[in-house]
Amino acid sequence: MMQTPLNLYSIYDYSQHMYPTKWIVTRTATGTHRHQYRDFGQRVRQLSQALRHLGVQPGDRVGTLAWNDYRHLEIYFAVPLSGSVLHTINLRLPVEHVRYIINHAQDRVLFVDETLLPLLAPIKNELSSVQHVIVLGDHPDVSQSPVQPALAYEELLHNFTGDVEYDANLSEESLLGLCYTSATTGNPKGVAYSHRGIVLHSLAMGLANTTALAESDTVLPVVPMFHANAWGLPFAAVWFGANIVLPGAAPTPRDLVQLMAEEAVTVAAGVPTVWLGVARELSQHPVELSLRMALCGGSAAPPALIQTFEETFHVPFAHAYGMTETSPLATFSRLKSALAERPAAERLAIRATQGLLVPGLSMRLVRDGIDVPWDGVSMGELWLRGPWVADEYYHGDGGGDHFEKGWLKTGDVATIDPEGYVRLVDRTKDLVKSGGEWISSVDLENTLMAHDAVFEAAVVGVTHPKWDERPLAFVVFKEGKTATPEELKAHLSQAFPKWWLPDAIIVVDEIPKTSVGKFMKRALRDQYHDYLMPQNDGAPT
Amino acid sequence: MMQTPLNLYSIYDYSQHMYPTKWIVTRTATGTHRHQYRDFGQRVRQLSQALRHLGVQPGDRVGTLAWNDYRHLEIYFAVPLSGSVLHTINLRLPVEHVRYIINHAQDRVLFVDETLLPLLAPIKNELSSVQHVIVLGDHPDVSQSPVQPALAYEELLHNFTGDVEYDANLSEESLLGLCYTSATTGNPKGVAYSHRGIVLHSLAMGLANTTALAESDTVLPVVPMFHANAWGLPFAAVWFGANIVLPGAAPTPRDLVQLMAEEAVTVAAGVPTVWLGVARELSQHPVELSLRMALCGGSAAPPALIQTFEETFHVPFAHAYGMTETSPLATFSRLKSALAERPAAERLAIRATQGLLVPGLSMRLVRDGIDVPWDGVSMGELWLRGPWVADEYYHGDGGGDHFEKGWLKTGDVATIDPEGYVRLVDRTKDLVKSGGEWISSVDLENTLMAHDAVFEAAVVGVTHPKWDERPLAFVVFKEGKTATPEELKAHLSQAFPKWWLPDAIIVVDEIPKTSVGKFMKRALRDQYHDYLMPQNDGAPT
Repeated sequence: MMQTPLNLYSIYDYSQHMYPTKWIVTRTATGTHRHQYRDFGQRVRQLSQALRHLGVQPGDRVGTLAWNDYRHLEIYFAVPLSGSVLHTINLRLPVEHVRYIINHAQDRVLFVDETLLPLLAPIKNELSSVQHVIVLGDHPDVSQSPVQPALAYEELLHNFTGDVEYDANLSEESLLGLCYTSATTGNPKGVAYSHRGIVLHSLAMGLANTTALAESDTVLPVVPMFHANAWGLPFAAVWFGANIVLPGAAPTPRDLVQLMAEEAVTVAAGVPTVWLGVARELSQHPVELSLRMALCGGSAAPPALIQTFEETFHVPFAHAYGMTETSPLATFSRLKSALAERPAAERLAIRATQGLLVPGLSMRLVRDGIDVPWDGVSMGELWLRGPWVADEYYHGDGGGDHFEKGWLKTGDVATIDPEGYVRLVDRTKDLVKSGGEWISSVDLENTLMAHDAVFEAAVVGVTHPKWDERPLAFVVFKEGKTATPEELKAHLSQAFPKWWLPDAIIVVDEIPKTSVGKFMKRALRDQYHDYLMPQNDGAPT
Repeated sequence: MMQTPLNLYSIYDYSQHMYPTKWIVTRTATGTHRHQYRDFGQRVRQLSQALRHLGVQPGDRVGTLAWNDYRHLEIYFAVPLSGSVLHTINLRLPVEHVRYIINHAQDRVLFVDETLLPLLAPIKNELSSVQHVIVLGDHPDVSQSPVQPALAYEELLHNFTGDVEYDANLSEESLLGLCYTSATTGNPKGVAYSHRGIVLHSLAMGLANTTALAESDTVLPVVPMFHANAWGLPFAAVWFGANIVLPGAAPTPRDLVQLMAEEAVTVAAGVPTVWLGVARELSQHPVELSLRMALCGGSAAPPALIQTFEETFHVPFAHAYGMTETSPLATFSRLKSALAERPAAERLAIRATQGLLVPGLSMRLVRDGIDVPWDGVSMGELWLRGPWVADEYYHGDGGGDHFEKGWLKTGDVATIDPEGYVRLVDRTKDLVKSGGEWISSVDLENTLMAHDAVFEAAVVGVTHPKWDERPLAFVVFKEGKTATPEELKAHLSQAFPKWWLPDAIIVVDEIPKTSVGKFMKRALRDQYHDYLMPQNDGAPT
C-alpha cells in the first residue's frame, strides 16, 4: 500500500474539493459573520503565505489567545499546513502560567484577539521568543498591543494572494499542535499533537459508533478552541463537510440557544455548566431545536440534567470523556442496541457513565500494578493507550508518574462493567484508601448531596491509626434545613456497605473551592489530617 | 503521541472486549450455525496456535479456497494476528490461474472447503510450496483431498487450547493479506494489503459519511470473501461490533431474502446481479426487510434497479466503487444534504453515479498527463492515492502502466461534477478516441439499450483513416422487435452530439461474452478492426 502520510493537508485538500460551499458562521459583537469553505480555504492559504513571509519556519510554534471564531479556525489550519505548530493558549490561566507556557513553547508569533491584548500587559517584557503579535479583529488598533511589533490580521492577509504550495507529504509524525494542561500544582504541562494523531482522532469522531460527525451536521463547539482543540471538532467538522457555527467571545446561554435555533445546529459540545445554563434558558424560553446530540464532556453531567434533555427537550444527550493528553476523545456514551430494551432508569444510568472506549484505543483498569476485573464494581486507575494518546509531556517536562510501560495513567479511578462502560468514581489523589480497600469520595459526596437537607458535601480521606485512611465528610445544609449525622449515615447506608461510611460528618458553612469552583480537597485534607488520630482533641489542626 | 501501530490486533482486541456477545450467523446446508464473538475469538486463538504448531512463520502466506462462512472469518483473523498473510483465492478463476497464484504467492498452508477439494485435483502435483491442506467442513473426509497431508479444521482446532500470545506491536507496515485480480490478459496480479491499510479502510467504512457500519447493524456480505476481502466488511463489522450474517455456499436470491428477513439484516452488500436477483425475488414474494442499505459495487447498477429498491421496496440503495487495488472502497454515493431538495430524477441520477471520494483518499482526473476540470462533462482517467491504495503489485509482477508518480491509474474513465460526484463512463481501453476527442462506449451502449427494441448493445472503436478511431455499434434486438439504423441514430441524437454517433450500427444475433458475462469487446475490435478503412469490402475480417 502507498506510504501516504496521515496529515492535515489530506483533511484540508479533501474538504476544499468536496465541500467548497459549506458554511462557517461566527457570532460577532454585531451579528454574524458567514463565509464558505472555499473562502476559508483561500484565507488559510493567504495566512500561510503571510507566516512564511514573517519568517515562521516548519517546526516553529505559533501561539493563539483567541475565542472560537472564524479567524481562529483559519489559524488552526494555516499554521499546521505550513508545518509549524499551533499552540492554543488557555486565556483563563493565571497570567504567570500564560507567561510560562509562551516561554516554554518558545512561541515565535502570537495571534491575539484585540479584546485579549490586556492579558499581555503584565508579561510584555518577559516574552523573549515572540517576534510578532498579530491582532485579531475587524479594525483593531495595533498600537494598543503591549508587545510590539504588532500587525492587524486582516491587513496582513490583504497583502498576500494565497499562492502557496503545501507539502502533501508532510510527515505524519511531525507536530501539528500544542496545548498545556491547567495545573493545580506546579507548572502547566505541554501536550504535543502529531498530524497522525489528529487525523486518526478525526476519523474516530466521524464513526457512526461515536459522535458520527457528518456532512449533514451543523456543529457548534461551545468548548473553547483553547481547550484540547475544542475536542477536535474543528478538524473533524471541516474534514467531513459539516457547517460550523462558532459562538465568539463569552456567549451567554441565551446567545447559544439563539444560535442553535437560527443556524439549525445539530451537534453542540460543551461542559456540564454550559448545558445547565442552556437547560435553564430552554425551560424559561422554550424554542424548537434541531439538535441530534448535546455532547457533554470535561466533567460528569448530573443524571438529572441528562434526563431533562432527553425527556423534556427531546434532545439526545451524550457523555464523552477524555483529557488534553488524549486529544481528547477517549470514551463516548452510546447505548448498545441490546440495551435499548432495559428499563428507563437503567438506560439513564448507562448514559450517565463515561461510556464505551472509542475504537482505536486500548484501556486497562489497574490497581497496585495489577489489572482488576471489568465487573462494574472493582475500582482501578484507568490507563489508556493509542495513537492519539500522549506518551510524554512537551520537552519531557512534568512526566513524572503519568506514563508507564507505554500507557497513560489518567489519574482517574473508574469501574468498567462487563459491557465495557467506563464509570469514573474518583481521582486517584482523592480516593480514600481504607485498610487496603478503596472508597470513592465522589460516590459518597453524590449520595450525600442527594439528601434533601444537603446543599454541598465533600469527602476526603484522613490518616487513621488502624486503617491508614478513613473518610471524613463535610456538609453544608440548604437554607433552613438540617439533619443529624445519624440521619445522614442512615441515608448513606442505603447505598453503601458499613465500612464505606464516613467516620465523622462535619457540618460547615462553606466548602473551600478553587478559582474554577472545584472543591479544594487538598485544603480539607491538610487541615483535618490528624482529626482521627488518638492524640487529636477534636479540633482541626 | 504514542507510536502504537495500526494493526489487526487492535481491531480484534477491541472487539473481544467491547462486543463479546454479538453474533456470527452462517447459513449452512442444513440450517444456520451461530456463535458469539467470544467463541469466535477463542477459536481464532486456537487456530493461530495450530498454525504455529504447523510451522507457519510470520510473513508466510496462507491460502483459502472457501465460501463466506464462520470458519473463513476465523481464518481471516487467525492468520494475520499471527503475523502471517491471508491469501484469499478466487475459486471462480480458471484452474491454471489458481495454480499460478498459489505458486506465485508460495502459499505454505491451504484452507479448502470440502466442496472445493476437486479444484485441486488437476493441479495437485504442481503446488510445491503447499505443506498442509486444512479441510473446512463439519466432518470432511480428508482422504479425499488431492493434496496431502490434509487435516480436518475442526479436529485441528480441537487439539489446541487457544493459549496464544499475540504481538500487540505488530508493525503496521507488515502484510495482512493478499488478493489477486482476475486478469483478462496475462497472469493475475497480486495486491498485498498492509495492516495499516486495512485498519484505515475499516475506519473509513465506519464513517457516518460513508457506509456508517455500526454496532446496531447486522451485516450480510454477499460479496465473496475471496473478492477484495468481501469489500473489507469482515474487518469493519467485527471492529464496530455488528452482527454478521454469512450466506455460505452459492446462495440463491431466495436464500438471501430469507436470511435478510430472518436475521433482520440492516446492511447487505453485493454486485448488481445479486441485487437484480433479490429484486426479482422480492417482487414475486414480498417480505418485510430491515435493510437500511443495499450496498452495491463491482460494476454500475442500472438506474431502474436503484429506483426499484428505493421506491418499491423502500430500501436505500447505495452505490460504491473500488477495485482490488483500493482495498476496495474508494467512492461511495451518498446524497449531500444540500441536494436533498432536487427533483427525484436528478437525485436518482446522482445516486446512480459512483459517488463521492471516501475521506482519506485523493483523486485526480487525468487526460494526456494533464488534470481535466471537475465540470461533470470533461472525461479523464481516474487516478487514486491514499493509504489503502496499492503502489505496486506483489513482487512487482504486472505493474506496467498502472502506477505513476505515486498514483494508481485505475484504467477507468470518469467525469467528476463540481460537487465531487464521480461518474464512470468507460474503461480506458474501451474508450473511442475520435479526432482527439473521447467518446464513451458505455454511454452509447446504455442509451441504445434504453431503446424499446434493443436487447443488448456493444460499442467499440475501430480504426478510421481520418479520425484515428470511430465508434461502431452492435445491437441484438428483443424477440419480435426491430428498428432501422436510422431510427437508432435518431434515438441516440437526442442524447449525444452528432460526432458521437456510431459510423455504423450492425445487427447481430449475439454479442460475444467472457466467462463472467461481460462483453468481449476486444474480440469485436479485432474482428472489425478494418471495417471503416477504404479498402474494406464491408465484411468482418
